[in-house]
Amino acid sequence: MENDSLAIGIDFGGTTIKSAVVSGAEIVHRGTTIDTQSRGASQLIAALVGEILSLKGQFPAVAAAGIGLPGIVDSVNGIVRQLTNVKGWTETPLRDLLKEKTGLRVHIDNDAKAMTYGEWKFGAGRDFTNVVCLTLGTGVGGGLILDGRLYRGSGLGAGEIGQMSIDRNGVPGNYGNLGALEKYVGNAQITERARRRYAAAGRVLPDASPAALAAAAREGEPVALELWEEIGTEIGVACANVVWLLNPDCVILGGGVANAGELLFTTIRRVIGERTMHVFHERLEVLAAKLGTDAGMIGCAALALRPPE
Amino acid sequence: MENDSLAIGIDFGGTTIKSAVVSGAEIVHRGTTIDTQSRGASQLIAALVGEILSLKGQFPAVAAAGIGLPGIVDSVNGIVRQLTNVKGWTETPLRDLLKEKTGLRVHIDNDAKAMTYGEWKFGAGRDFTNVVCLTLGTGVGGGLILDGRLYRGSGLGAGEIGQMSIDRNGVPGNYGNLGALEKYVGNAQITERARRRYAAAGRVLPDASPAALAAAAREGEPVALELWEEIGTEIGVACANVVWLLNPDCVILGGGVANAGELLFTTIRRVIGERTMHVFHERLEVLAAKLGTDAGMIGCAALALRPPE
Repeated sequence: MENDSLAIGIDFGGTTIKSAVVSGAEIVHRGTTIDTQSRGASQLIAALVGEILSLKGQFPAVAAAGIGLPGIVDSVNGIVRQLTNVKGWTETPLRDLLKEKTGLRVHIDNDAKAMTYGEWKFGAGRDFTNVVCLTLGTGVGGGLILDGRLYRGSGLGAGEIGQMSIDRNGVPGNYGNLGALEKYVGNAQITERARRRYAAAGRVLPDASPAALAAAAREGEPVALELWEEIGTEIGVACANVVWLLNPDCVILGGGVANAGELLFTTIRRVIGERTMHVFHERLEVLAAKLGTDAGMIGCAALALRPPE
Repeated sequence: MENDSLAIGIDFGGTTIKSAVVSGAEIVHRGTTIDTQSRGASQLIAALVGEILSLKGQFPAVAAAGIGLPGIVDSVNGIVRQLTNVKGWTETPLRDLLKEKTGLRVHIDNDAKAMTYGEWKFGAGRDFTNVVCLTLGTGVGGGLILDGRLYRGSGLGAGEIGQMSIDRNGVPGNYGNLGALEKYVGNAQITERARRRYAAAGRVLPDASPAALAAAAREGEPVALELWEEIGTEIGVACANVVWLLNPDCVILGGGVANAGELLFTTIRRVIGERTMHVFHERLEVLAAKLGTDAGMIGCAALALRPPE
């Protein structure tokens, strides 16, 4: 039933809100993109309602809508507890607000969990039982599939790999967590590190984005290569910790920074191998996410169609 | 059914093998203790068979036997893959060997997982859904109950909290894992650190065991107090990492080192609170194991009586 039904998947990002009508892993139709930052919460909710009703009007077979949001989401009670980088969303009962105005079944979830579910159901994580998913972007998020189910934890917050420490006396994270991974390998941190390193080498970098640094490294630029080696090691150390704890069969890396591809993956695989016991890495796959930026919408749509637990 | 039936629980330690007839959380009768190191694998297996048959003879209602072992145990196929600190056990099909000679249902498992299951079923972890268990002894082991089930991971090795790194450039663990927690807070490491620290203060310590150091700290001895504060911080940092990843409702600490009690627990709770987001620690309980050294036997007996999954 899940694969045959149509649902709306909405990816509520810090910059834009994207929506689509989804069938299984297929994007049937893309909706209008909404600007996140120019509106307050109530206006955004009105815009979401408008978009859902418009898509439902065009695709009357749509059975449900799923929304993934960046922050703490109580998916069981349908409440947005707090958003990261979007103001005015605190304890917002978004699910019921949308349900009432659209007449659809609605599911809301954390965006990294939605992406994890999408990758497991239809992407790189298919056929695996224990999947650890990392999203490497502005921040570093994550999600877990354990024993073939999306694992949420007691406060529904599980999977925050980016907040885990790789150095107990390291750079402070946002929550007192010294050495938090995302303070090393977040987008802005990578750019900042590159700028400093090039400056030290007496060079100015016109574009120090992760994408530009990946391009430079692929052309053999030594400073960029060294930086990716470091970033891969840092992510690898965090992954090794997760591997010791959860002994997964698959680690999936997605998000913009993961587009560095083998520059990153080769090092991550090597570091996990160097820092864990054989039985923990012998059959472990470290894979790139497959659904790209659509993973959130696809995952949310699938979660919305899932029968209640 | 589980609580009413009798089973034999066996705790196969690096020094001694203890056995008992168990009913639920109750030790009905203790068996003979077997010395682990003086015999090879086949002699130990013969001794185990003798002990099981003797207990079965005294308690004919015994329905099953469970054995917890220190190392990599394939509990699904009943094979001891490798033991820690006990030689001659590699790929040993212990379950079927014992089954054949005793006529009982037999379950074999990793000792930390057996202890985790015991504490969750009958000890400090009752009424919790997501439980992280640490055993602080010669080594640091662990086990996980997730969504109300014992979580094993894809290679059946999950829960190795003692191998997780608290410092990516720290002290080498046994598997290339720099900064492995157990290389800071294992029994021998605590003693070694205390010796060094007292020597630096121009003092000789007659007994630098964790128990003696806990007694000294309770009497207000400043060097010992400082050491426990450090140890608590190190364990707290590792726990905070696990809490970010799994968002459990309960962390249980057992094993000899945990007998330091509030000297350790107060610091661990504080460090988790300081290094995680509110929603991750607001309802988290950090508790002492309740079943003491019987947890392994009790957990194994319960696992042996469990209907097949």
